[in-house]
Amino acid sequence: MSDQPAAETSVDAHEAHHGYISNKAAYLARLKRIEGQARGLQKMVDEDKYCIDILTQVSAMTSALEKVALGLLDDHLSHCVREAVAVGGAEADAKIAEASAAIARLVRS
Amino acid sequence: MSDQPAAETSVDAHEAHHGYISNKAAYLARLKRIEGQARGLQKMVDEDKYCIDILTQVSAMTSALEKVALGLLDDHLSHCVREAVAVGGAEADAKIAEASAAIARLVRS
Amino acid sequence: MSDQPAAETSVDAHEAHHGYISNKAAYLARLKRIEGQARGLQKMVDEDKYCIDILTQVSAMTSALEKVALGLLDDHLSHCVREAVAVGGAEADAKIAEASAAIARLVRS
Amino acid sequence: MSDQPAAETSVDAHEAHHGYISNKAAYLARLKRIEGQARGLQKMVDEDKYCIDILTQVSAMTSALEKVALGLLDDHLSHCVREAVAVGGAEADAKIAEASAAIARLVRS
Repeated sequence: MSDQPAAETSVDAHEAHHGYISNKAAYLARLKRIEGQARGLQKMVDEDKYCIDILTQVSAMTSALEKVALGLLDDHLSHCVREAVAVGGAEADAKIAEASAAIARLVRS
Repeated sequence: MSDQPAAETSVDAHEAHHGYISNKAAYLARLKRIEGQARGLQKMVDEDKYCIDILTQVSAMTSALEKVALGLLDDHLSHCVREAVAVGGAEADAKIAEASAAIARLVRS
Repeated sequence: MSDQPAAETSVDAHEAHHGYISNKAAYLARLKRIEGQARGLQKMVDEDKYCIDILTQVSAMTSALEKVALGLLDDHLSHCVREAVAVGGAEADAKIAEASAAIARLVRS
Repeated sequence: MSDQPAAETSVDAHEAHHGYISNKAAYLARLKRIEGQARGLQKMVDEDKYCIDILTQVSAMTSALEKVALGLLDDHLSHCVREAVAVGGAEADAKIAEASAAIARLVRS
């Protein structure tokens, strides 16, 4: 990392060992289902379905998204943060601060 | 909708005065954007983007969904619950209990 | 209501029919327990208990508070909002807007 | 604490390097304020304050608790998890799994 500028998301440098990669197919399947839920909601609104039934679907979709987020966070701690901590120093500090900020955004969203 | 019975939620009976109907285009536009966010997330996972950047997008999508839910709830209270309360009796009790349950699901999701 | 100025919280005018009043003892007991949880957390921090155990207690306390909030909201819709809607007009509009704002604060907190 | 064994969470073994210890006074002050909020809520209920005003205080208290939780989590990652990862092996795995579970409880509460 130290000999090349870190672009905003340092994607290239880390690409080989992103934590979620082993479950990529599972994440894609869950996100595909969530995309389908978003389409289903449009259909419900378009067909004047009952508000409460639409809200129930919104809650289900929010829970599904939350599960994706918690899975990604666990993968991130288990791989990216763990590796950075093993290296130590400023990179470790930065990764932990970054993870804490992501957790705060998640808790507040 | 009119040629098929909607048993579960008595949609037909209420169709004329669903609360969100006046903002239908706005809800559809927001849900369309949310669907796009779900597709964007799949692309990010597929391209091995950095976990934290994916999480940031998940938080943004969750907030967008939350805004849709709060809008629908406000519309629901302003129209469906209000009308039921004006009629009174068991229908009013049922609508209020139903709204409270939807709020609880939303707070917990 | 119309012949007297509404102070910020209109407490006096509404005092006789606040929704939660029938369950006052139950709310007080739950809040007393929550106060005890806050004291327990101070003891845990003071005694250097393990962070994760403290976090578990914070989550339990947050859930207890959430239950109080959902109970109050249900009482509020069942009594204050319902009565305002029965009267109708601007008071009904105001009560519904106020309830929606409280729900949004709750969902976001 | 030192004269009694704390089985469940192996407090004694970790006591010397709990992450939040440097901010102990700050955490205690915040929890003391939260305890005061819990007492204030009891007073509001006891005095039949307006439900919406009580709900506003509940939301404020929930946000205060959330800040405590996010602070503890950040401290935990920066110290306990970091140290465990530096040691490596099963202890590191266990600490990361434990942190992820605490995050999930927090997000859902």
